[in-house]
This record gives sequence, structure tokens and C-alpha cells, in this order.
Amino acid sequence: MDDAAGNYDVMNNVVIPTPGAPDPRAQNSLRQSWEMNYQEAAIYLQEGENNDKFFTHPRNANALSAYLFAHNHLFYVMELLTAVLLMLLSLSEAPAVPFLRLDVYVHASLELLALAMVAFELCMKLRWLGFHTFIRHKRTMVKACVLFIQFIEAIVVLVRQTSHLRVTRALRPIFLVDCRYCGAVRRNLRQIFQSLPPFIDILLLLLFFMVIFAILGFCLFSANTADPYFSTLENSIVSLFVLLTTANFPDVMMPAYSKNRWSCIFFIVYLSIELYFIMNLLLAVVFDTFNGVEKMKFKSLLLHKRSAIEHAFQLLVTRQRPDGVCLKQFDGLMRFYRPRMTARDRFLTFKALNHSGATMLSLQDFYKFYEVIGLKWKARRIGEHWFDDLPRTAFLILKGINLLVKSKAFQYAMYLVVAINGIWILVETNMLNDGVSWTHVVPWSYIVFLTIYGVEVLLKITGLGPLTYFSSGWNLFDFSVTVFAFLGLIALAFDMEPFYFIVVLRPFQLLRLFKIKQRYRNVLDTMFELFPRMASLGLTLIIFYYSFAIVGMEFFADVVYPNCCNTSTVAESYRQINVTIGNQTVLKEGYYYLNNFNNILSSFVTLFELTVVNNWYITMEGVTSQTTHWSRLYFMTFYIVTMVVMTIIVAFILDAFVFRMNYSRKNREPLDDPEDEKGIVFETEVSQTEALQTLDMYKHTLGITNLSSLQDMCVALERSGHSSLVFLGRRSRTKSDLSMKMYEEEIQEWYEEYSRTNLQPDETFHRELDSPEASATNSIN
Amino acid sequence: MDDAAGNYDVMNNVVIPTPGAPDPRAQNSLRQSWEMNYQEAAIYLQEGENNDKFFTHPRNANALSAYLFAHNHLFYVMELLTAVLLMLLSLSEAPAVPFLRLDVYVHASLELLALAMVAFELCMKLRWLGFHTFIRHKRTMVKACVLFIQFIEAIVVLVRQTSHLRVTRALRPIFLVDCRYCGAVRRNLRQIFQSLPPFIDILLLLLFFMVIFAILGFCLFSANTADPYFSTLENSIVSLFVLLTTANFPDVMMPAYSKNRWSCIFFIVYLSIELYFIMNLLLAVVFDTFNGVEKMKFKSLLLHKRSAIEHAFQLLVTRQRPDGVCLKQFDGLMRFYRPRMTARDRFLTFKALNHSGATMLSLQDFYKFYEVIGLKWKARRIGEHWFDDLPRTAFLILKGINLLVKSKAFQYAMYLVVAINGIWILVETNMLNDGVSWTHVVPWSYIVFLTIYGVEVLLKITGLGPLTYFSSGWNLFDFSVTVFAFLGLIALAFDMEPFYFIVVLRPFQLLRLFKIKQRYRNVLDTMFELFPRMASLGLTLIIFYYSFAIVGMEFFADVVYPNCCNTSTVAESYRQINVTIGNQTVLKEGYYYLNNFNNILSSFVTLFELTVVNNWYITMEGVTSQTTHWSRLYFMTFYIVTMVVMTIIVAFILDAFVFRMNYSRKNREPLDDPEDEKGIVFETEVSQTEALQTLDMYKHTLGITNLSSLQDMCVALERSGHSSLVFLGRRSRTKSDLSMKMYEEEIQEWYEEYSRTNLQPDETFHRELDSPEASATNSIN
Repeated sequence: MDDAAGNYDVMNNVVIPTPGAPDPRAQNSLRQSWEMNYQEAAIYLQEGENNDKFFTHPRNANALSAYLFAHNHLFYVMELLTAVLLMLLSLSEAPAVPFLRLDVYVHASLELLALAMVAFELCMKLRWLGFHTFIRHKRTMVKACVLFIQFIEAIVVLVRQTSHLRVTRALRPIFLVDCRYCGAVRRNLRQIFQSLPPFIDILLLLLFFMVIFAILGFCLFSANTADPYFSTLENSIVSLFVLLTTANFPDVMMPAYSKNRWSCIFFIVYLSIELYFIMNLLLAVVFDTFNGVEKMKFKSLLLHKRSAIEHAFQLLVTRQRPDGVCLKQFDGLMRFYRPRMTARDRFLTFKALNHSGATMLSLQDFYKFYEVIGLKWKARRIGEHWFDDLPRTAFLILKGINLLVKSKAFQYAMYLVVAINGIWILVETNMLNDGVSWTHVVPWSYIVFLTIYGVEVLLKITGLGPLTYFSSGWNLFDFSVTVFAFLGLIALAFDMEPFYFIVVLRPFQLLRLFKIKQRYRNVLDTMFELFPRMASLGLTLIIFYYSFAIVGMEFFADVVYPNCCNTSTVAESYRQINVTIGNQTVLKEGYYYLNNFNNILSSFVTLFELTVVNNWYITMEGVTSQTTHWSRLYFMTFYIVTMVVMTIIVAFILDAFVFRMNYSRKNREPLDDPEDEKGIVFETEVSQTEALQTLDMYKHTLGITNLSSLQDMCVALERSGHSSLVFLGRRSRTKSDLSMKMYEEEIQEWYEEYSRTNLQPDETFHRELDSPEASATNSIN
Repeated sequence: MDDAAGNYDVMNNVVIPTPGAPDPRAQNSLRQSWEMNYQEAAIYLQEGENNDKFFTHPRNANALSAYLFAHNHLFYVMELLTAVLLMLLSLSEAPAVPFLRLDVYVHASLELLALAMVAFELCMKLRWLGFHTFIRHKRTMVKACVLFIQFIEAIVVLVRQTSHLRVTRALRPIFLVDCRYCGAVRRNLRQIFQSLPPFIDILLLLLFFMVIFAILGFCLFSANTADPYFSTLENSIVSLFVLLTTANFPDVMMPAYSKNRWSCIFFIVYLSIELYFIMNLLLAVVFDTFNGVEKMKFKSLLLHKRSAIEHAFQLLVTRQRPDGVCLKQFDGLMRFYRPRMTARDRFLTFKALNHSGATMLSLQDFYKFYEVIGLKWKARRIGEHWFDDLPRTAFLILKGINLLVKSKAFQYAMYLVVAINGIWILVETNMLNDGVSWTHVVPWSYIVFLTIYGVEVLLKITGLGPLTYFSSGWNLFDFSVTVFAFLGLIALAFDMEPFYFIVVLRPFQLLRLFKIKQRYRNVLDTMFELFPRMASLGLTLIIFYYSFAIVGMEFFADVVYPNCCNTSTVAESYRQINVTIGNQTVLKEGYYYLNNFNNILSSFVTLFELTVVNNWYITMEGVTSQTTHWSRLYFMTFYIVTMVVMTIIVAFILDAFVFRMNYSRKNREPLDDPEDEKGIVFETEVSQTEALQTLDMYKHTLGITNLSSLQDMCVALERSGHSSLVFLGRRSRTKSDLSMKMYEEEIQEWYEEYSRTNLQPDETFHRELDSPEASATNSIN
């Protein structure tokens, strides 16, 4: 590496061996130059894939080594683990989860360790980016500042041996967000911030109406002394804010309503305007912005990738043939870009890209790089069934099973069994209403149904072959549910208490019924397609939760407890006391003291309750009565923040589904094509002579030794007896593929616009070398 | 009419006077035939406008007279009043509103009377449609059946002198829905029913998960005796149904959570799946269906109108010139179609249609009929200001005022005043926190601000002229708010208590601030554009409310009262008693007994509370504890029905706004064009000679006497001194206009498809007559 690094700064001083020089040193230097070109092209393609801006492209040898150090999975994992460790520390810090409490010096030392690691990571980044680029990179700068503060605080904690008010811990998620693996979260956050301006406008409208109505309500109802909700202007505003969330609804109206029945009009008008109109408007505006942002994001990603491909292409062409990349260069690139890829797959990827059939890849071919790169290659099975090669008797039996499990009758019989099972569970559970001792007795129906499911699974596996069986998501689901049920049975039989919960999962078998209807299949398929995105949205939400939880813990830890809030209007919900009603004495338990900020886990649950909104004001009023009025600000801010995130989530789900449905309408795709036909499939045919030639070339010209995959291919070709073999490359379909089809026409416009503005690719990276063969030939001559 | 009616059945036996026959009887008959053609064409156009199917087109003289009887505003109003009367009767029937109670024989007689009127209306319809069409018309048949049942029940009530269980009253809204004026409600209902199938699919998914989780919850939590929510399977299902609405949220979790902190996972997973995923899916599916339905509806309306125009056109062309309609025929048509329209406006409408400038309207011209028909015509003002004709001094002063009120500075000064006023009100109200005696004292600030607003209004009216001033919605708003404030001041000054509420409306002045920002103007404009549709959706909701209120009253009237539900889990909310807590004795008032079904007004309020959803289970459990478990079915059904309607409303608002925003993006319309430029504007230039010719033609050829409007036009032309005058036709923009632009390309496709399938307009109505002039000429010769 060091040797190569010495030559790396060739961006401008191109090393051009004089043609026809037989000098082996020159040839060696040419090979090194090519290796460096491959590597740089691979880096460009990686930057395109990760949406890294090109201004962070490493510019010299030091930068390159730092770049390579900071861009591998080991480093990423370390980055992630450090960030997660920092966040998890709050489990053991001051208001700690009881069974995870650590001494101050332990958790402070751990924190210092983690922070040191973050600092080390930042140093690597500084080295790679250079100082100027480093301070231009906003996110990194913010991270550096936060790191600095945290460092000082951690040292203070260690010195004082006690935690002070550390609200800055709420900034810890920044380390997580900055991780390479959390790119999706960053994108979500960006999208949330982009949707904010219109959101805030409508929010102001909402709050404005709220204030107007608060003044009105105060004027109308404050004369009624039995009405605590409008006694002061502040109460009036708080009541109407809570009413916005409907959490106090009929109650807030009742005192006024009992005095004058017409006062309900005030509340009906308020709710109609605020809840049913402006809130929906909010959704509409966010939805609209979201749509636009999604499209823009797709466009910029697409153009960035295109630009990365162009950069890489320029690095791969030879001076002799400036408009094509041959297999040799491509292979060189791929060895850097995907070091784990086998020679066979590199060859097949090249073939898949090579649409025109020429020996070189044109730029047009190369544009498809990102579509082809994720494919998993497999030779097409020639036989129809997995058991084609078995002896006659076995073949007939298996063929019979195959026909059976593929028949409609078998399918519907299974649905029937599942339905009966469902009804059975319902009836059985209903009959057990008094005592639930049944977990210790295995009901015979359980065994019967489980046997049926077991037999079904076995039949399907033997009939379809394990590979085909497990390639379908639904079959996997069936299989795992059945296996779980078996495990549950074993747990019951051997009386292993902690596993009883598995038995309880029985009703999930019923989900299989949803395969029957087309719409459900669509819904569930879309759900699975959306799952990664949903998960990243969930993670984003958790990051917000974390920050709020820290702030909540710093200010409200241990403020609520049973019978704490007797001065507030919600005292009832915290009361735990014997109450005399008439002549009876009853223990009344107000459970709300459980919704506290005593440790981070409790805080998360409390925040989830606040997200669900119902009765959130009880928690708010409880805490407020024990602290100050300003605590309400925390709860109201949290409400608005979750409203933003939730609206985005709703907009996302709406957008995704409407998009999917439009897509299927536009492409008149039935959407019920057999499951194994889903995803993106490329086909490539390799003839025997071609395979042998390639093997030969790899062996002699490139001098690569690890060619077992190519050799296997040649052997397979020979054995099959056919002159050629078809390979299928598959990958699952992503939203980007759908978008490509949806925006087909616009994409052409974008490309044209893009090539108009970028007519001349900038020249800094344009470094043409002689083709290696040419120089080899030269040196031979 | 009778005379004409004798000839009406000319559909097939066309009365064709032999050309060249000078016989005055023949000429007279020809004129009658023309009149009949005009009338039938007008009926076709009306049917096109109202989206009446052509199979209800009157086919003979009796049908025609019945049709004419049943199609005028008097009849429509009667229809509406009868339906409203029938619905209002429930105010005075059995569980009556106290101050509106009527004796049984009074309201039963009123009901019989109203039903008799409905019967009469139905008879007219039968006469018009004929028996065969009548029973093919589903809505009418349903109405007839309901009428029959109601009749019998009303008689039974009269005979027994007491109301029995009359759930069928819930069907009364059918009479309202069937009214001509409630077409929008019918459309909404149709749209709701069309969105139902996908909605129900997803609803089943929702309920399915609910049942699975209910079984799980029962298994997990029923062992905990302190947990009333999961003690039986039924309780478990009900708890999770209520949890779906979040109404019982943290409470339902608390007993389990206090026992084992990990049990919160069950609830978090349940809410994440059901509330945050499937509920949003529901919205997505309804939104998608709604989009499709809206487009289909627009398409079918458009093609229906086109077909109506074609039918009418065929009736208006003469045999001599089968491809054009001249002014004479058009005028004849308009006299039937819009009897109130002046001759000038008929002429101008003809000119507006006549795009090609020829003397005849081609079918292509005539296709624009519905776009042009609603225009209000006005001569374009030649002067810039209303005061141009005033003497010099007055002109200068008014010009100054005009410039002042149009200046940005004036505008922003007013915004500043409003903002100060807003802050003032807030501060003032906040300082009055203790007692609200201020309604009896006029604060001086009120008078100061009111004076400023008054001066502003006067300046604007004088500066812009009353016509320009009042043509802007915002000015109208300013004006009415100011006038209201003045009325409030007067009410205060003269101590008229019932009008104090006007003073309270003061803060609405602040709404003027929203003019500043573009987005708010858009939002409010869109809101006003959508208002008619929103109102019809509201009416649809009220119809559902009415039916549910009747059912509720029949079953649950007077079941809840203070301290009624001591056996239920929600006893607290109904308790009104002195409670001893510790050592204190407090009067606890549970107001929920006010949420009852004791009369129709209370029922409406209760149903609104159920719509808002929060704490709805308290009402449900209260009623259930006093009646049977099956009462829950009523409340759950109501929840699902309102969920459907509310989802539709959300989808509607979403769709409307997204549509509007797409529209403005697509047309690159700045959306902030001056207010008076909004709406649809047609221009038509009339020269002096043309005007005189037309007047002449009207006088002599058509023999119409009421020509004052045309004469006025001629006079105005002469006075203006110009050789021609431009007339502007304006109307406000409807959603249909927006759709026309949005679907421009698709519309062409629809038309082509339509003309392929309808190449030959069916011939039954095709009745060409000689041109009246031709025959007149003939008769003269």
C-alpha cells in the first residue's frame, strides 16, 4: 500500500509510460497505476452508492489510507457499538434501572472510554477529509462540539464522584445518527426538517385559533365557579390545548354543559375547526410536501449515482479505446469494490451489464451498474423438480406429493383446518373463562392441529423441495409458526415455565387465512417491502424518545408517587387509599404514579403513553402539581414533536401505499404473479467456449489464482452436456426500482437536464492509461 | 299547454309541414312544434345538469305535464320542507325536548299530513315516469316502501294515542336524501358506499388482529385478579376494541403493568400494529379508492352532460342547416331553460358560445354550453375608478384616498394595529383573571380600536368604491366583523344583555392577520372553495346521527341518571355524592349522566361525544350496565360508522388540498393573483350595429316584447361614444373547472372513446324541422 501510496497523488501528474517502452519497471509502474485507478473508481462507486458528496473524496495518499481505514465494516461496527454503548449508559446512570445500577466511577470511566473512541474516529475523519473539508462538514462539526462538552462533563462527574444536572446527555443520539449504518435515520431526520416549514405555518394557525377560543372560553365560562377548566386564562389555554388532543373531551365541557345546554356549541365549533379541519390540513400539507421531497430525493440520488458512474468510467477506459471498459478493467474494479465476489460472479455481472454484446462496456451499459451489482447469481435448474434424478419409484411418489401440495383442494383444505382451529381456540378460550389452569395441561386439540400442520409442512418440503419451499415468505412463516408451536409443546411436556409464552402464540396460525384474499396479500407484501423504512422511522422516533427521556429524568425523576398530587385536579388518578363511599369501604388504586420518569425504561413507557395521547394530561398535571407550571412546556413540546413525527409516519404510509397502487395500475401488473417471480431477475447465457476462454484469460493474463468458481462453472457446463448454460441473477425489488418505473418519463428529462449542465465532466479525475495488454504487447515486441 | 300537449308525442311521428305551404294553420303548427322542441331541449339540458338519467325523460304529454309540475323550485321547496318537517317531528315525539313537547294526536296528525304530501309527490313522480320506469327506479321504490310503513305506524299511533317502539323513524332521512336539493348528500352517500368494500376488507384485518390479541391478553392477564379488563374473553375483546380508539389507554395497561413491567410490550405491540399501522392503512385504502371514485364520477358527469348537449343540439337544428344553431333557436331554448334570463344575457351567452364568429353555433361551440350558462354579464367599466365622473376637487381627494388604501404602508399599518389589538386583548383578559365584571364596562381600548377599524372601512369604501370593495371576500369579512363589533358596542351602551356575546367575538378581528402569508391565503381560499362540499358532508353526517339518535332514544331513553351505574366499572363518572377522603368531605359530581338519549338534542350531543371518541366507553359502559350487554353493539356500530364517515372526510380534505396544490404546480399559477381576477371570466365585444340588428330581429322576427335589457344596452352603447362595448361574464371557479384543467389530456381520450361507442346518436329524439324563417318566407311567398 505504501508503495502505491507514494504514487497516489497522480490526479494531476499523470504517470504515463511512454508507449513501446519494454522497460519492466515502467510496466510495473503501469500496473500499479491501473491498480490505483481501479481503487479510485471503486471509491467513486461507493460514494455514489452511499450518497457521499464528492468533495469528501480522498485527495492524497494519507487521505486515502485514512479513508480506507474509516470505510470498512469493522470500523462501522465499532462506530455503532460506541454510540450504542454511550446511549445504553443511561440505563446505569444516576436515576438508574434498579438491577443495572453501576457506581459513578464505573459508568463515568466507561463513558470516557467510549468518548475517547469517538474522538479517535473523528481524528481518522480529520485525517481523511483534511482540515478545510472537515470544518465545512456541518454534521461532523456538531459532533465534535458535542463530544467536547461530553468529555468535560464526564471528567467533572469522575472528579466530583456524583452526577450533576446533565441535560446534555440528551445530545448523545447524535453519535448514533452519525453512524454509517444509520443513513436511513439521517435521511428521515432530513425529511422531517424539510417538512417543517409548512407544518409550522399550519401549526401557528392551529395555535392562533386555540388562543382566540381560549379568550372566548374564558369570557363565557369563567363566571361559573364549578368550572375549573376556564377559571383563568392560563387554565383556559391549557384546557383547550388538551382538548386539541381530545384527551379531556367530554369532561371539559360538562360543567358548562350542565349549567347551559347551548354551551356545547362552543366545544363543537372548536373541535370541528381545530380537530376535524386544521389537523387534517396539517396532514394534507405534510403529505404534499412529503411527496415532493421523496421525488426530489430520488432524483438527486439518481443523478449522484450517475455522476459517480461517469467518474468511475473515466478511470477505467484506456487511452487507446476511450469509450469502452473491457472485462479486465471491470474485473480489476470489482476486486476493490466487492472483494468477496467470486471470479464467476464478476464475469457474470460483466455479461449482465454488457447489453450490446460487444466485448467492451459502453458508458450506456455502465449506467446500469447499480441495478446489476446486487444480483445473486445461480445457474438455472434444467430439471423441473428437485427429485428428477431420483429412481423411478421415489420419483413417482414425490411427483404425487408435488401435485397434491400444488392443488387448490389441498390449499383450501388447509385454510379450512386453520379456520376450524381458530373457532376452536375461540370457543375453548371462552369456556375457560373462570380459571386459566390450562397452561399446564396439553389439550388434545392442540396436539391434533399441530400434527396436521406438521404433516403439511413435511409434505410441502418433500413435494416442492427444500429450496423452493423456503424461498417463499409465506412458507417460511408457516414453517416458523409450526416450529414454535412444537417448541411450545415440548416446553409444556417438560414443564419449562419460561417458555409457556410460546403456547400463547398459537392464534398466530390464523394469520395464514389472509393468504386467501388478493388485497391482503398486497397489503402484507407492501408491508414487508416497507419494513426497512418503517424500522428506520421507528428508530428515529426512539431517538426523539431518548432525548426527551433524558430531559424528563433530569427534571422529573421521583416527583410522582402514590398519593402525591392531592392539590391538583387529577389527584384521583394518583390516590391509593381506602375510600368510604356511602357505607362501603373500598381500596381505590390510582395507578398513574407508575407513569414516571424514574429511570430510562419507565420514561420510555411514559413517553409512549404520551404519544398515544389519551389521558396524557393526567401525567402532565401530576408532574406539574409537584414541580412548576413550566413543566407543561415539556409535555406540550413533546406532544408537538410526536405530532410531527406521527404525521410524517402517516404521510409515509399513505404515500407508500398510494404509490404502490398507482404503480400497479400504471403497469397493469396483476400483483398476484407467483411469489417466486417477484423481484428483479436478470438472465445471462454463457456458452462453453466463452467460459473456457474467460478461464484462460483469468489464468494467464490477469494472473489471478483463486478461480475455483470459474472452474466449477466450466465443469458444470461440461457435465450438463449442453453447449451453454443460463444463469439467473436475482435480487428483491426496492422502492428505487418502483420509482424508476413510475417516473420513467421524468427520468429522461432529468438526465437530459443533467447532461446539459454537466456537458464536460470535470477533468481533475480524468486520467487515461494505456491498456495493460497494449503495454504488455509492447513490452513483448 | 294542452294544445301543444296533443302534439307532444311527436318523437316518432314527426310533424313535418310540407315546404312551401303558405297555410297559416301549418305555420302555426310549425311554431308550436318548434316551441316543443325548445322545451324538450331545455329538459335534456336540465337532465344533463342534474345528472338525471335519460330513461326518466318524459315520453308523452301527461308525463310532460307531470314532469314540469315536479320540476320547479316551488315543488322542490315543498319536497324539502315536508322532509324537514318529518325529521323535526322527533323533537316533539315521545322522548321530547321539554319545551317542544306536543300531544300525541297533534304530532301524529302533523306526521300524517306530511306523509300525505310525500305520497302526493310520489304520485306526481309515478305519473311522470310511468309505472314501468317507476318500479325500475330503486331509490323511489325504497322511498315508497318506507312511506307505506310510516303511514301505517302513524295511524297506529293515532289510534292507540301512544307511541310504540318506532325504530322505523330512523328511516325518515330517506325523504330528505331523496330531495332534489340534497343531490350532494346523495353523491356523498354513493361515494361512501363505493369506498366500503376495501374499507371492510381492512376492517376485518383490524378486527382479526383484535381477536387474536384478545385471546393472547386473556391468556396472559386473566390470572391477575386486580385486572378487570381481561377477566373474561368478552371483557378482553371489549377492552381491546376500546383500546383501538385509545380511549382507555394507560388505564387498561396499568393493572398488568404494576404487576410486571414487561407486560407493557403487549400493549405497545398491539397499538403499533392496530393504531399506527392498520388504521393508517385504512386511510390509505380509502384515500386511494376515493381518488379513483372522484375521477370516475367526474368522467361520467362530463360524458352525461356531453350526451345531453348532443340530444339538445339535434332538437335545435333545422332541416335546412343540420349542423348549426342560430340565435333564434338558441333564444327559444333559453326561454325555457332559464325563464328569468334577460334578452341581453341570452344574446351575450350566444355570443360567448359562438367561438368561431359564424352566425350559427356548431356542435363544437355548443359543447361549451354548461361552462357559459352560469355567467353573470356586466359591461366592462371604461373608467378606472368609480369616481372618474365626479368634479375635479372630489376626484383629487378620492384619488388620494384610493392611492392610500392601496398602498402597502396602509396595509401593514393595519396589520400592526390588529396585532397590537390582539396583544392588548390577551393582556387585558389575563389581568381580569379574578372577576369577569368587564362585560358591563366598555373598556376605552375597545372604543379606540373600533374607531380605527371603522375609519379603515370607510376609507376603503370611499377609496375603492362600494362595488369593488364588496366584491372581495376579505373585505366582506373585515366589514362584517367591524359591524358586529359596533353592534356589540351599542348592545353594551344600551345594556341589552342577550347581545353581549357579540362583544366576545372581538378576537376574531385577529383573523385578518392571516392575509399576510401566502400559504394561509391559499388555505383559506381552498377552504371557501370547498365549503359547499364540506357542508354537504356535514349534512351527510347529521343524517347518520339522526338515525342513530332515533335508535338510541327508542332503546336508551332515561336509562342513565345520577348515581345510576353503581355496578359498573365506570360508576365514578355517574356518581354525585358526598365522598369522604381521609378526613375531608367533598361533593363529587360525575357529570356523565348528562350524556344521555333522553331527547333528540341530547342524543346529538352524546353522539358527537362518541364521534370525538375520547372517554366514549364511559357512556357505553354506563348504558350497558343499565340495559344489556347487547347495547355495546349499538355503540360499536356507531363507532365503526363514524370511522367510515370521518375517514372519508379526511380523505376528502386530503384529496382536495393535494389536488389543488398539484393543480397550481401543474399550471404554474402563482395562486396569489389579485382577488378580483379569480374565477372564470369570459369576454364578449358587441358593436353598435350588431346591437341594433339584434334588437331589430328580436322585435320583428321573434315578436318578443320584453326587450328593455337589450334597449338599455343599445342606449349605453350610444352614450359611451365608442363603436363597441366589451361585456364581461363572470362566475366563481368550481372544482369541475379545476378537474377540467387537471385531466385535460385524459378528457380528450374519454371523448374519443365516447364518440366511438356512441357513433350514431339514437334516433328517437331526432326530429328536424324547417327553420322558422324559411317557413315564414315560404308563407310570405
